[in-house]
Amino acid sequence: MNKTQELSAPPDAGPGADGVGLTALLGVDKPLQLDCGAELGPFTVAYQTYGELNAEKSNAVLVCHALTGDQHAANPHPITGKPGWWHHMIGPGRPLDTNKYFVVCQNVLGGCIGTTGPKEINPATGRPYGLDFPVITIADMVRAQAMLLDHLGVENLFCVIGGSMGGMQVLQWTVSYPDRVFAAVPIATAANHSAQNIAFHEVGRQAIMADPDWRAGDYLTQGVKPHAGLAVARMTAHVTYLSEPALQKKFGRNLQDREAITYGFDADFQVESYLRHQGSTFVERFDANSYLYMTRAMDYFDLARDHGTLIKAFEGTKTRFCVVSFTSDWLFPTSGSRTVVRALNAVAANVSFVEVESDKGHDSFLLDVPEFFTTLRGFLAGAAEHRGLV
Amino acid sequence: MNKTQELSAPPDAGPGADGVGLTALLGVDKPLQLDCGAELGPFTVAYQTYGELNAEKSNAVLVCHALTGDQHAANPHPITGKPGWWHHMIGPGRPLDTNKYFVVCQNVLGGCIGTTGPKEINPATGRPYGLDFPVITIADMVRAQAMLLDHLGVENLFCVIGGSMGGMQVLQWTVSYPDRVFAAVPIATAANHSAQNIAFHEVGRQAIMADPDWRAGDYLTQGVKPHAGLAVARMTAHVTYLSEPALQKKFGRNLQDREAITYGFDADFQVESYLRHQGSTFVERFDANSYLYMTRAMDYFDLARDHGTLIKAFEGTKTRFCVVSFTSDWLFPTSGSRTVVRALNAVAANVSFVEVESDKGHDSFLLDVPEFFTTLRGFLAGAAEHRGLV
Repeated sequence: MNKTQELSAPPDAGPGADGVGLTALLGVDKPLQLDCGAELGPFTVAYQTYGELNAEKSNAVLVCHALTGDQHAANPHPITGKPGWWHHMIGPGRPLDTNKYFVVCQNVLGGCIGTTGPKEINPATGRPYGLDFPVITIADMVRAQAMLLDHLGVENLFCVIGGSMGGMQVLQWTVSYPDRVFAAVPIATAANHSAQNIAFHEVGRQAIMADPDWRAGDYLTQGVKPHAGLAVARMTAHVTYLSEPALQKKFGRNLQDREAITYGFDADFQVESYLRHQGSTFVERFDANSYLYMTRAMDYFDLARDHGTLIKAFEGTKTRFCVVSFTSDWLFPTSGSRTVVRALNAVAANVSFVEVESDKGHDSFLLDVPEFFTTLRGFLAGAAEHRGLV
Repeated sequence: MNKTQELSAPPDAGPGADGVGLTALLGVDKPLQLDCGAELGPFTVAYQTYGELNAEKSNAVLVCHALTGDQHAANPHPITGKPGWWHHMIGPGRPLDTNKYFVVCQNVLGGCIGTTGPKEINPATGRPYGLDFPVITIADMVRAQAMLLDHLGVENLFCVIGGSMGGMQVLQWTVSYPDRVFAAVPIATAANHSAQNIAFHEVGRQAIMADPDWRAGDYLTQGVKPHAGLAVARMTAHVTYLSEPALQKKFGRNLQDREAITYGFDADFQVESYLRHQGSTFVERFDANSYLYMTRAMDYFDLARDHGTLIKAFEGTKTRFCVVSFTSDWLFPTSGSRTVVRALNAVAANVSFVEVESDKGHDSFLLDVPEFFTTLRGFLAGAAEHRGLV
């Protein structure tokens, strides 16, 4: 877990034997100042890279992951063995073409796949942080990413891109470090979390906290895990990632391996079986406290509050934006993207906006939706030309 | 709990000292045949009446309650002290005018406010049924209602009306007992439960079953209650009863009794505080196993499956229908009502259909929405005239 990234690293990093991949120890000389007032440092970040940084160091793309994503964007996941969550997107000839770009994806601060978070050891106590880990914000995540880029010698990003919570990081990057971002692609996201989304997150947190094995966050020390509560949280959230038409088309009222309803509480319906599977596999790869911290960071995200207005947040931006939403996404509906676009237009920013037709709901940003990929290819090609990347 | 309803009972029944109100012991001579194959009898139903049955016995209106409703439709609730869940709707001069109609509302079979359900004593064991209670269907609920009406000497209903799960009962009434229903008002409902709705119900059930105090359904015998799991189930469901615009308007990102976010997991946001309150008050009045049975009955509801097609289900109907949906209801969207209306039109039924403009989501059917009430007044006045009620 202490390999240090060399710029001559192989183009495609992998998960490594420990499932973490590359790591960097940051905040050694100067700790990270968090929004909550606490300081963190030194701390570890785990990350993956794909492709090579060019001599001008002008081709770096930062990929920001969503709530339950991680750094394994384009390599097989060390725990599940499944392809990386954006393997369609990243690779030779793909929209984020690793023949052209140096792609970096970091497990966010507070995460649970190698970056310092509530499940890691608190040096002050020698035990896992649990709830002693400071509550972090999207801006804190972005600060930690900027520190990693400093460490890698990458001053400027050609592009920062991500969906959902990843999209929040993208927006935050353009506001926190406007001069370091040439192009930004916030996807299926918003400039703040809506009341409905806070509500769904709160349900998930309550499900975790209701599990007696949560032990007020101290479960790792006590040798248990709140799997049941975390699974319920995941199931609730998962329904919100899909769309009603997608669920209807995929499952409808189809029964699971049976001819008729059983008049009981087994998973008679395919959709029940699917959800239970989503819950039970999730708990194998995710930490319950990390789930609390990630959801809280999203709830707290509010660019307008931090800057007075959203327009003020973006004032003077020189970044080229491509804002993407999906028609059937009811968790981060197009209206949220429009709000961002309106504010960008008000400051005469260079902004493209595409509402992609898709019936796959919020999850569309993880899928190979042709119109979405065509949009990204077009935008990135244009931005690369302006950036002198050919 | 054993008062027997006299037709000379006072016009407005009340909760009674035991919180149950009127009760009837049914299925004494002949048990109720359930869809699952089991028999139930004798069993108790708890109900309320408002207004008086006329000499011709032609003015009876059956009000069907939703998932977490009960018989206390228009009197103060014995546990919460709040007005009945449809007190705007039922009373002198109200749409269901108790000067004209004899309104009956029965706690459904499997319920937990006096009608036989999983929390009542199983005569075979002398202990609460728990999961030994047979899984019931919407059709079973309707059979038990028909038995109550027989008991009350009411052969024909002027009208059967209800929203959500109540609306499912309304539709089932028109199919199970077409000759007993003059007019039917299914509100904010559908002829089957969608995959998304089954999914949300499954999340709620999993939350209850994940609570160690659920004890495989045997909690009452063991002297505990799965309050935490039931509260999470309620919170999840509650989000689905509202609409995104309603949540945004009511709560937005307003903070709860504080000036700034606290960087913690307390209820910083009003919407969190509201949801926690919804969860904690619900567990005081509802039985967790009943919640499992009610949600399952809704999941199983599928009129088309039972009859081959929805058109066949309604064939030959002489009932006058008024189908109502609400624009912002995403749990039971207008499309589900349209499916019902199309099938009714295909059998040349007498059907009115109104999609009421409301931003209050699924809960609209419980609220005093002017266009909704005007619609009901108009429909009921016309139906009453045709029925010779003046």
